[in-house]
Amino acid sequence: MEEPHIAIIGCGAGGGTAAQFARKTNRKATITIFEQSPYAQYSRCGLPYVIAGKIPSVDHLIEFSQDWFAKEHITVHLQTTVESIDLPAKTLTAVHKGTRTQHPFDRLILATGSRPQIPPIQGIPTDGPLPARVFCLRSIDDALKIQDTMRQAKRACIVGAGFIGLELSEALTEKGLTVTVVEALPHILTNSLDTDLGDQVAAAFPKAVTILPNHFVTKVSPTSKGLTVFTKDRATNQESSFDTDFVVLATGTRLEVHLAKSLGCTIGATGGIVVDSHARTSVPDVYAVGDCTEYKDFVTEKPVSIGLGNLAVRQGITAGTNAAGGEYEMHRGVLLSRTSTFFDIQIAAVGPLFTPEYPRPLIFGKITGSSLPSYFPGGTPITLKVAAEEESGRIVAAQAVGSNASQRINVYAAAILRGATVDELQKLETTYAPPIAPTLDVITLACDVAQLKRLRKKRER
Amino acid sequence: MEEPHIAIIGCGAGGGTAAQFARKTNRKATITIFEQSPYAQYSRCGLPYVIAGKIPSVDHLIEFSQDWFAKEHITVHLQTTVESIDLPAKTLTAVHKGTRTQHPFDRLILATGSRPQIPPIQGIPTDGPLPARVFCLRSIDDALKIQDTMRQAKRACIVGAGFIGLELSEALTEKGLTVTVVEALPHILTNSLDTDLGDQVAAAFPKAVTILPNHFVTKVSPTSKGLTVFTKDRATNQESSFDTDFVVLATGTRLEVHLAKSLGCTIGATGGIVVDSHARTSVPDVYAVGDCTEYKDFVTEKPVSIGLGNLAVRQGITAGTNAAGGEYEMHRGVLLSRTSTFFDIQIAAVGPLFTPEYPRPLIFGKITGSSLPSYFPGGTPITLKVAAEEESGRIVAAQAVGSNASQRINVYAAAILRGATVDELQKLETTYAPPIAPTLDVITLACDVAQLKRLRKKRER
Repeated sequence: MEEPHIAIIGCGAGGGTAAQFARKTNRKATITIFEQSPYAQYSRCGLPYVIAGKIPSVDHLIEFSQDWFAKEHITVHLQTTVESIDLPAKTLTAVHKGTRTQHPFDRLILATGSRPQIPPIQGIPTDGPLPARVFCLRSIDDALKIQDTMRQAKRACIVGAGFIGLELSEALTEKGLTVTVVEALPHILTNSLDTDLGDQVAAAFPKAVTILPNHFVTKVSPTSKGLTVFTKDRATNQESSFDTDFVVLATGTRLEVHLAKSLGCTIGATGGIVVDSHARTSVPDVYAVGDCTEYKDFVTEKPVSIGLGNLAVRQGITAGTNAAGGEYEMHRGVLLSRTSTFFDIQIAAVGPLFTPEYPRPLIFGKITGSSLPSYFPGGTPITLKVAAEEESGRIVAAQAVGSNASQRINVYAAAILRGATVDELQKLETTYAPPIAPTLDVITLACDVAQLKRLRKKRER
Repeated sequence: MEEPHIAIIGCGAGGGTAAQFARKTNRKATITIFEQSPYAQYSRCGLPYVIAGKIPSVDHLIEFSQDWFAKEHITVHLQTTVESIDLPAKTLTAVHKGTRTQHPFDRLILATGSRPQIPPIQGIPTDGPLPARVFCLRSIDDALKIQDTMRQAKRACIVGAGFIGLELSEALTEKGLTVTVVEALPHILTNSLDTDLGDQVAAAFPKAVTILPNHFVTKVSPTSKGLTVFTKDRATNQESSFDTDFVVLATGTRLEVHLAKSLGCTIGATGGIVVDSHARTSVPDVYAVGDCTEYKDFVTEKPVSIGLGNLAVRQGITAGTNAAGGEYEMHRGVLLSRTSTFFDIQIAAVGPLFTPEYPRPLIFGKITGSSLPSYFPGGTPITLKVAAEEESGRIVAAQAVGSNASQRINVYAAAILRGATVDELQKLETTYAPPIAPTLDVITLACDVAQLKRLRKKRER
């Protein structure tokens, strides 16, 4: 087997996993990771749960330390920035505390991730250090700062009602704070759920959380004790303001692709580095994984940005294996399986969101049932919505809110991957036992509804 | 639409569901159910949970009462036995409290179910009334008798370590009894799990339950206060005995097919009425559903007995719809998705058990992981085992023990239904969030193991 030098830029979920699978594939490869932060591979997704106190400290989030990698003969340079890459010479220049070093490589894996996207808000620079009492939640350092401020605080404002904003809102209310979540769009979770399901989730939130949908934050200004947040209602243009102790911006990310650009890698419509099913970029011997990449949606085949940890890990497996001389190919697109939970509501979804651009007519089946048979105490509601192509019946997406939404959506992930129709899944034999699940689970009942609609439409034609 | 007379013999899950779907399909059909017991459609599977006290009383098990059916214009004759059927004349003779009546029909649905199978035990007649303190657990009346006896009892003996026997053992220990489970085979749950997983479950049982595997009960004899149970170790032939307060036989069922035989319906290798994907028997206008039937295994295409409530319901939908003039076809075989839970261990499985008769070489992937990422507190172990055809990689079965086994197995049900391979499912995007599931779930990791074995075997060839 060859003995390649593999350089990996970034030690997040994608980069760290790539290193591990490169090592699994090739014992003789030289593997080096360059990471800007002081931390090796840790779980960003766990940050809200450290703030909530469910995970005891940020130390627990470190899944693979510098020492762990060292035992696998993988060198991790922390607090080290890759400044430039000389592709023809196959060397890169790294900077650690002001000192420049050069490193050779045969193959490069870009795992450069993303930075917080700062929206235009008066009082907050979009590209500079954040003012006092204004934070993002992207790194361990961010979490430590929020924890520190939170201890003296009673009120918080979160900008953005996506997964991170809402997970953080739960964490802060568990610590006794009241939270106002300002969302620029008319609904919450618009990146994850259709609006009907998003509204259902919002309606179940506790009193300690106020959601201000369809509001911009226009300005944040300091007061003697905290901050004043100025908002504007997008429907009425009415301006208002409220005082808070601190603000957290959870308004999405900007992809870190400047190194990829310098190499001439193709950047796609979403702003991510275009990769294929082998995690290859357009430039030979250069792979890319995780948040900084763009791949294809499995169903629509349209370009999508990879902003999910489970995808970063899968790309890491792919890039690491291939860069080390193995062979690993991803599915022809991503299903975008996603889940979260806040305030005892579990939500999960798979497949694209439905915008008017979907190329073929769709039908939907939506049902709310119980997690258990009606006669067994303790069942909880679960809503499941499936979308299928009207003509073929092929399932293209599913979303769920409620009990065990996550594993129920995994059933749909398998179904979509294998091109199942609502007619087929309607008849799926799901497991049944009184304390576990009903004879007919919402998994199949949602497909019943969709299939009935299909048959009705066929008869009408 | 035509207005058929539909007669249904048996109001269990299969018969009751058939009636409901016949009505949904055809508002003008005449639908009549004949049921031997005093109860309309109730959940047999719920009986152990009434004994445990988790379901308050047997009344709660009645899912659809005689009155409920009456509102749907479905006549249910309770305590009524169908004595004979005159197929050419399309009439049947029913007996209610000694009175015979004749009923016309156009289509017949046999939902005659099964009776407990009584093994040859000295002191217990295999085909007559059971002696004092010896019970089965098949009906509401059985459950009431057990409840009554249990209140004065401290010890119970259960014969048979299948789902019902073990669910009942949990129920009785929750009521403070100590339980001895005598199983004739060397492992528990041999109808549901491979022996390695069955042994794993047995090892986790509490002290209040003693399992005697590989033992026959040879004799049960009354004492002044209870019973003496005589057993024989099948390996050593050693005989021994113990005293107990009562005995429950959970040793499987005998299918009720005598009416089907009288009609000339084909009876299959398993002793069940052979039905096709439309729930049709070999005799025109005669359908059959539920425990009394035999259908095909989806994977092996071999005949299998239908002994699961979720299958009875699906056959009921099929027969009811078709008998009423609609069109509904089941999948080309059953996946045998099954689940249960005892002593906080959830188990689930799908697909055939693996006996040496499987026609092609199989490989197995087995892994024990955690339900949550390692850094999130509260994760519990879950073991998942997958079986696939070595050559094609096609998944044929999966079994799981532990956290949320049931929904994880549903993912495999969808995968098997659509012919997915371990290579495909290994790369399935499962949902991930720290409090819900790890980035790589055992769902995919078990397939990893199997796929690695496949690749290794290919290289060896």
